[in-house]
Amino acid sequence: MKTFDEITQLITTELEQINWSKEPTGLYEPIGYVLSLGGKRIRPALTLMACNIFSDHVEQAVDTALGLEIFHNFTLLHDDIMDRADVRRGQPTVHKKWNDNTAILSGDVMQIAAYQFIARTPADHLKKVLDLFSQTAEEICQGQQYDVDFEKRDAVSADEYLEMIRLKTAVLLACALKTGAWIGGAGEEDAQNLYDFGINIGLAFQLKDDLLDVFGNEATFGKKIGGDILCNKKTYLLIHALELAVGNEASELQNWLKISDAGLADNKIKSVTTLYNKLGVKAICEDKMEFFYTKAIANLDNVRVAENKKQELRNLAEKLMHRND
Amino acid sequence: MKTFDEITQLITTELEQINWSKEPTGLYEPIGYVLSLGGKRIRPALTLMACNIFSDHVEQAVDTALGLEIFHNFTLLHDDIMDRADVRRGQPTVHKKWNDNTAILSGDVMQIAAYQFIARTPADHLKKVLDLFSQTAEEICQGQQYDVDFEKRDAVSADEYLEMIRLKTAVLLACALKTGAWIGGAGEEDAQNLYDFGINIGLAFQLKDDLLDVFGNEATFGKKIGGDILCNKKTYLLIHALELAVGNEASELQNWLKISDAGLADNKIKSVTTLYNKLGVKAICEDKMEFFYTKAIANLDNVRVAENKKQELRNLAEKLMHRND
Repeated sequence: MKTFDEITQLITTELEQINWSKEPTGLYEPIGYVLSLGGKRIRPALTLMACNIFSDHVEQAVDTALGLEIFHNFTLLHDDIMDRADVRRGQPTVHKKWNDNTAILSGDVMQIAAYQFIARTPADHLKKVLDLFSQTAEEICQGQQYDVDFEKRDAVSADEYLEMIRLKTAVLLACALKTGAWIGGAGEEDAQNLYDFGINIGLAFQLKDDLLDVFGNEATFGKKIGGDILCNKKTYLLIHALELAVGNEASELQNWLKISDAGLADNKIKSVTTLYNKLGVKAICEDKMEFFYTKAIANLDNVRVAENKKQELRNLAEKLMHRND
Repeated sequence: MKTFDEITQLITTELEQINWSKEPTGLYEPIGYVLSLGGKRIRPALTLMACNIFSDHVEQAVDTALGLEIFHNFTLLHDDIMDRADVRRGQPTVHKKWNDNTAILSGDVMQIAAYQFIARTPADHLKKVLDLFSQTAEEICQGQQYDVDFEKRDAVSADEYLEMIRLKTAVLLACALKTGAWIGGAGEEDAQNLYDFGINIGLAFQLKDDLLDVFGNEATFGKKIGGDILCNKKTYLLIHALELAVGNEASELQNWLKISDAGLADNKIKSVTTLYNKLGVKAICEDKMEFFYTKAIANLDNVRVAENKKQELRNLAEKLMHRND
């Protein structure tokens, strides 16, 4: 069994070996740039870890894993255009460093590159991996569309929000695990339990993100605390705050939502955070996160292999829930 | 053997049966819209015609053919954002009718949909069709990048231009033919000859487009004559005009290239067209078009099947060369 660190090291090495120094440079340079910015490489790690549960030969799942990581970075690239985000992992985004057209076209060719890596999945598993990957990719686009739609809507329910983050975030983690399991030789039931583990960990992971954005430590979080509050992002916290606030608290919250004055940014973050604490939405979000985390662990328990085979995944899930960044 | 008309009718019917009335509507409506705008459906027709040369069962190639048509329309959708084109086939483009973000994301999901249709290629042929499709898709992005790069460069050679249109236009026609041939059961040599036929017809087709844009009949061409001249597009005609013009003609051409005043549009088109005639670049372009057309016909001659099997493709090639729109 390989440790999580050994697996991420393997992925980093393999990712660095892909040659993006091709012509026309305007097309490929941004891809090399985006992939050089780093990231946790969680998705390809999940593929190799799931494979490793059933097989010692994780190398047979490497190309599929790289395809998923390239696809994930493609979605960030195009999402950053749509969100007009200027910074990603502390560096300028592609549409900022180059321009929108470059970001669109380089993203398009990244999506093709993702499929080219997926196509190198061992022949026995290719068709079902390809179909799950396409379904997942489509779901991620649906999630992004709901995310965009929700920003324009007045009311979004907690269930709608959870379905959106299931599509936008959780399905790719689930897909990464299931494809790895398949390639490793897992049976359908184990592969499906790992898929479900991925969905539940993904939902918990995103709720953790919502919490960190408000209650995280700026030094370790890596980006500015309160970003979601400033842009009125309808997170699990805000959705519940809007539902629970009455009287003065409701009008105070509504007033802050109308304020986009940069000079009042710190005040807005502080006041909305205080409201969140008064309304108890932090605890609601933490409870829901724990709910999904518990479900995820139950899914993992149901995978019928020796306990030691699952230890690395269990550790990773635990680490993702207690991370500060 | 099915006629070209029977084949395009089949494709139109199959395309219309795809359900794009799905949630979220903001994601899928633009796809249904783009595909409803029509077009000649040349690419899927080539797939089915090539299949039909070797097999009576063209239905086995329908999903692959639809995938290629969806991919082609995806490239138009994203190219229109990059070119800031407001009109396509007489109707507003997606980024104009909706907005840029919608056009980006709907395009992304169209590319995935294209792969979903390609994935339904009969299992025996899936891997090689998938690989050729991805290679072709990547080449089309390269062609688009060169097209963008060339607009910013002072000098572009005729050979560079031909390589750009090979990538941007010809490879998809070639891919459509080769995949159809494979699915129909063709041997590798026949499939390759049909690929080469596609490349050469594609090059001739694009040169014909360049000619029609200047010398076409506005009533039948469907868009305004002289569009390429107005935006200084480095077509085969302009590249040769820039090479051949000396003295007064050179300075006159350079002057017109600097003029973008809308009030002088008709004068610019008329004057540059007159220069093209004086410099003989129309004949140069027509000769090159004939050169590729002749090569294409030789490729088709080399396909080792009965002559009557190739008649529909021969007729189509002939029609594409003598079209007025």
